[in-house]
Amino acid sequence: MATKKLKIGIVGGTGYTGVELLRLLAVHPHAELVAITSRGEAGLAVADMFPSLRGYVDLVFTDPASSNLDACDVVFFATPNGIAMQQTRELLDKGVRVIDLAADFRIKDIPTWEKWYAMPHACPDLVTEAVYGLPEINREVIKKARLIANPGCYPTAVQLGFLPLLEAGVVDTSYLIADAKSGVSGAGRKAEVHTLFAESSDNFKAYGVAGHRHLPEISQGLNNMAKGKVGFTFVPHLTPLIRGIHATLYAKATKSVDLQSLYEARYANERFVDVLPKGSHPETRSVRGSNQCRIAVHQPQDGDTIVILSVIDNLVKGAAGQAVQNMNIMFGLEESTGLEIVPLLP
Amino acid sequence: MATKKLKIGIVGGTGYTGVELLRLLAVHPHAELVAITSRGEAGLAVADMFPSLRGYVDLVFTDPASSNLDACDVVFFATPNGIAMQQTRELLDKGVRVIDLAADFRIKDIPTWEKWYAMPHACPDLVTEAVYGLPEINREVIKKARLIANPGCYPTAVQLGFLPLLEAGVVDTSYLIADAKSGVSGAGRKAEVHTLFAESSDNFKAYGVAGHRHLPEISQGLNNMAKGKVGFTFVPHLTPLIRGIHATLYAKATKSVDLQSLYEARYANERFVDVLPKGSHPETRSVRGSNQCRIAVHQPQDGDTIVILSVIDNLVKGAAGQAVQNMNIMFGLEESTGLEIVPLLP
Amino acid sequence: MATKKLKIGIVGGTGYTGVELLRLLAVHPHAELVAITSRGEAGLAVADMFPSLRGYVDLVFTDPASSNLDACDVVFFATPNGIAMQQTRELLDKGVRVIDLAADFRIKDIPTWEKWYAMPHACPDLVTEAVYGLPEINREVIKKARLIANPGCYPTAVQLGFLPLLEAGVVDTSYLIADAKSGVSGAGRKAEVHTLFAESSDNFKAYGVAGHRHLPEISQGLNNMAKGKVGFTFVPHLTPLIRGIHATLYAKATKSVDLQSLYEARYANERFVDVLPKGSHPETRSVRGSNQCRIAVHQPQDGDTIVILSVIDNLVKGAAGQAVQNMNIMFGLEESTGLEIVPLLP
Amino acid sequence: MATKKLKIGIVGGTGYTGVELLRLLAVHPHAELVAITSRGEAGLAVADMFPSLRGYVDLVFTDPASSNLDACDVVFFATPNGIAMQQTRELLDKGVRVIDLAADFRIKDIPTWEKWYAMPHACPDLVTEAVYGLPEINREVIKKARLIANPGCYPTAVQLGFLPLLEAGVVDTSYLIADAKSGVSGAGRKAEVHTLFAESSDNFKAYGVAGHRHLPEISQGLNNMAKGKVGFTFVPHLTPLIRGIHATLYAKATKSVDLQSLYEARYANERFVDVLPKGSHPETRSVRGSNQCRIAVHQPQDGDTIVILSVIDNLVKGAAGQAVQNMNIMFGLEESTGLEIVPLLP
Repeated sequence: MATKKLKIGIVGGTGYTGVELLRLLAVHPHAELVAITSRGEAGLAVADMFPSLRGYVDLVFTDPASSNLDACDVVFFATPNGIAMQQTRELLDKGVRVIDLAADFRIKDIPTWEKWYAMPHACPDLVTEAVYGLPEINREVIKKARLIANPGCYPTAVQLGFLPLLEAGVVDTSYLIADAKSGVSGAGRKAEVHTLFAESSDNFKAYGVAGHRHLPEISQGLNNMAKGKVGFTFVPHLTPLIRGIHATLYAKATKSVDLQSLYEARYANERFVDVLPKGSHPETRSVRGSNQCRIAVHQPQDGDTIVILSVIDNLVKGAAGQAVQNMNIMFGLEESTGLEIVPLLP
Repeated sequence: MATKKLKIGIVGGTGYTGVELLRLLAVHPHAELVAITSRGEAGLAVADMFPSLRGYVDLVFTDPASSNLDACDVVFFATPNGIAMQQTRELLDKGVRVIDLAADFRIKDIPTWEKWYAMPHACPDLVTEAVYGLPEINREVIKKARLIANPGCYPTAVQLGFLPLLEAGVVDTSYLIADAKSGVSGAGRKAEVHTLFAESSDNFKAYGVAGHRHLPEISQGLNNMAKGKVGFTFVPHLTPLIRGIHATLYAKATKSVDLQSLYEARYANERFVDVLPKGSHPETRSVRGSNQCRIAVHQPQDGDTIVILSVIDNLVKGAAGQAVQNMNIMFGLEESTGLEIVPLLP
Repeated sequence: MATKKLKIGIVGGTGYTGVELLRLLAVHPHAELVAITSRGEAGLAVADMFPSLRGYVDLVFTDPASSNLDACDVVFFATPNGIAMQQTRELLDKGVRVIDLAADFRIKDIPTWEKWYAMPHACPDLVTEAVYGLPEINREVIKKARLIANPGCYPTAVQLGFLPLLEAGVVDTSYLIADAKSGVSGAGRKAEVHTLFAESSDNFKAYGVAGHRHLPEISQGLNNMAKGKVGFTFVPHLTPLIRGIHATLYAKATKSVDLQSLYEARYANERFVDVLPKGSHPETRSVRGSNQCRIAVHQPQDGDTIVILSVIDNLVKGAAGQAVQNMNIMFGLEESTGLEIVPLLP
Repeated sequence: MATKKLKIGIVGGTGYTGVELLRLLAVHPHAELVAITSRGEAGLAVADMFPSLRGYVDLVFTDPASSNLDACDVVFFATPNGIAMQQTRELLDKGVRVIDLAADFRIKDIPTWEKWYAMPHACPDLVTEAVYGLPEINREVIKKARLIANPGCYPTAVQLGFLPLLEAGVVDTSYLIADAKSGVSGAGRKAEVHTLFAESSDNFKAYGVAGHRHLPEISQGLNNMAKGKVGFTFVPHLTPLIRGIHATLYAKATKSVDLQSLYEARYANERFVDVLPKGSHPETRSVRGSNQCRIAVHQPQDGDTIVILSVIDNLVKGAAGQAVQNMNIMFGLEESTGLEIVPLLP
């Protein structure tokens, strides 16, 4: 257990993952926020932009150049894709650990990354070094990592849902389907027409059916679990929630197995994965504001189609909470430190 | 074309399908509302319960017993399941045509119906006579029908989505999946905790994964289209919309075919099915308040998984609008009479 | 009654008031849409931007310069403030009538306008000529007008609410308060952070308490009604609705009068103002999608504080619907032509 | 500071104030939940009804009769009005302190209470003894109280908003107006039609304009502050939020005073009242899930109308949070113990 507080920097503190990191770290007993950068908002008090933080965060946004991030123990990147890869090497060289909440280090195959993110990668060697920060799979390597690629929101919900099935080898891996639904905060705090209230409220739609950036990230993870190439279809949808992802997963059973026991056993020691009793339907609000993933397992009409329901808060277990969980693991803290948050219901 | 107005009765006018019938029929040029019954609200002016109808509906709810429904040309049942089957024979005997918006006449196999609806059926012979009111399949028999079983909301969206694939025989019929999302009005205007605003707003969940009453109704339809027994999984979800159903359908291609052309050809002459351009993602709000079904066809990553997106307004094409469409067909009116409603967007 | 259709042009068809004009005019029996301009979207089919219009609007957005608006009978400006005043004179000179849905011609006092809108006015003489298009006050002059200043959304709800009180002279005009709440579509279809779903859903706030552009417009109207300068406080709020304004108005009675009768008498012949029975609370959804204003009158605890509740759909009676109502009046059509829309409830 | 944990009982744990008490007390460092009663749900695990509490609350609902509430240090009543007054005397006699979140002990004048709550009061003497639990006014007496009448949600927001004005005597007390807006959770977790999602979403309305039960409670408080009878109008509205109250308050200045300084000084030492910088507009989401009240002060156009904006989370500072704050005060704990919750934004 650390006795002194960790010095923490956040690069890009004006988006939703940034403010969520602030919400969590402001009351984390072993964290000391020392710098929050924003090129556009330098000089503005953080709590003037986010009044919810009044009384908890006294910092002012600073320009990245003058933020003295080198003096931090750990720096979180809550930036658009393509930023962290520019600045990570220098920080690592100074002994600062880095947790990237964007996608710069998530995909091991560089050509795949470059295709989906439409830019050349600045540091392929660091991609090799980076640890994919899904603790339920990679806890041991996270402990020793200098650089964490924090998973995407959809990838967290989908991979945790499929994991026990694929590890156990009980389904047809050539035909996996994830029908996923996300709240609107998943699109970020960007001024865009399609996520305006008057556009996305009282409305439901699929998007990116032809291809979404989380598809190669999830496929990579599923391939690893299945130890081979899976066939995977991913259909994301936008639903009028602020927070929450609900992934409905479909797979075809190839063996008869007690699925409920399989899932309960796999996640028995996982603090942040909760397997619900048989027959349950997890609600997104049951994890609102918390780092929990809740999962239910179904096999309707005793057929061979398995249906897995997996819910997370996209900004917590799907982003900032998982990043803090990774930080706790990296620094030898109790994994749930600062994350004992009872979900906000109603 | 009718020259005089049709005399219309509505049994059970206090639920959402009832008030939606009133919205449509109040300005239908060939309709004359003569009776709206409600056992509980007899004596109350309809517009006192639904102020949106002030100036359009002058009727008072009347007790069913004294409502003189025999004098109507057509009676709509917007009642809970199990009511219409008690009263239909008497009306038919008097020459009144009946359109049931509940489920009493939808399922041809009586034991199946009795299992899912948990009551004995009062008139199996009328089930045999009843025509399933999906005009895109049954238009010709609807013209001559005395009794229409108006389809359920999910069944309408799902069947219209799968229809071209199954008629053309281009998919594996043993593994069809419908991941469907409904707005909360689909649960009806009933005082229940789980559909309270504070329970279902900012929340998303699956329900009835083990089995939903629309499963046998859809299976019956898909079996008919496929001319054989299909394997079908149906997972409904509740999403915080007032109106709207979005069905995301998955099937495995068994033949290479131009899906876009297939769908456009099948629905070329259907006024209320709109096949969107390739690559589209229909939004539920694009049909809000209208009788339209909009469909988009995808085959992601050129794999063999076909993804169909189908949206309707559950209260219109999924209930009252389709009922009016059926009425128009039965009485020789232009099929779109009273249904030329531009969707309300935003 | 016109026998041929009116040729109609819309300048600025990509915002919410523009698409709402299209929704109404597409099925207006005496309207023929001939041009819809958009500088940014020229060449795009209107229905590609707004799929709700598929099958109803075949037009393509055209560049204003090449849109041949001179050939129209009437041109609607659904543009940002400051555009209509640049183009109106030329159209009027060609015999085209103009209805401006923005604020360019609403305020008679030019220095006041220039202060609140922060630009010099391009044609003060046309402001003098323009008729403020609130039919309940100005119907007779609207009939003869060439140029209509269509009222703002808040001003419509507030003025219709106060009108009978001020005309009758029964309240203290030095202390009038309007506490108004608007749905988010009132902010327009502009990419801005504060109206994102994740910002404005599940949230309520006041804004512009120090001063809102609708304040001088309302004050001008109230002064006219009171035949003198009133004291008026206006506090707008943003509430998570797509559509709807609810104005709660407060005034101090100076005379004892039967308020219910006063309101019923004043609006007895107004097709689009509906005075509810005593003790009612109008809901915004009771006018959703319609041109109706519904008003209820209260005097709580028999004290001297009068409370008026006034609701409209901000995009219909508060914008496009009122514009069509004005067009109907200007061209001698039945005032409600194309506006017989039953509100969408639920 | 207590060294051992307080034993806590909750009577009526199935409503929103009950589950909110559980959310707060489950992680309160000095609280030990020992009994949660529910007549209807006895035997059910609390976390089966509220999955958000899985892992935090292991208790089962018990029948009130067998719940051994006598052994508690403090019992919270989260029951409908009229229950607490039946059971309080017995608990007090056993040395148990009582905090009633309902209205049984809020109004000192018994005939007034009996008129508004339509029942005879069971123990007028305890009303006399009870302390109205608004710490910002009554902290000293709360410390010694056996019985706390926890304030209503509207009364908390409105009284904290008016308090500095009335204490300072700078407004006309004969004409105070509170235009208040509440989220739907304020109506409780009761199966009712008007609070269904499909009824109250995308809708805004006033209610209870003729008289609401919080009117006499607020009037009593304002009279005390003003040391005389005030004239007060209260108009509550229902807005589509889950949580949150926004009170917009109007008063007429009788003296020139620096309002910003007045408010800042009055609340300088109040941990849970936050006076925002001049010109601010507090949002309800800025207090979501927290015990904070945020207030902004305006005097528009330098006129004599003062506008105060006051926001709280109705379930926290408006109910369960304030109850825990009162418990902390009563038992000599740091007032903010267990209440250091950063609001959930977005």
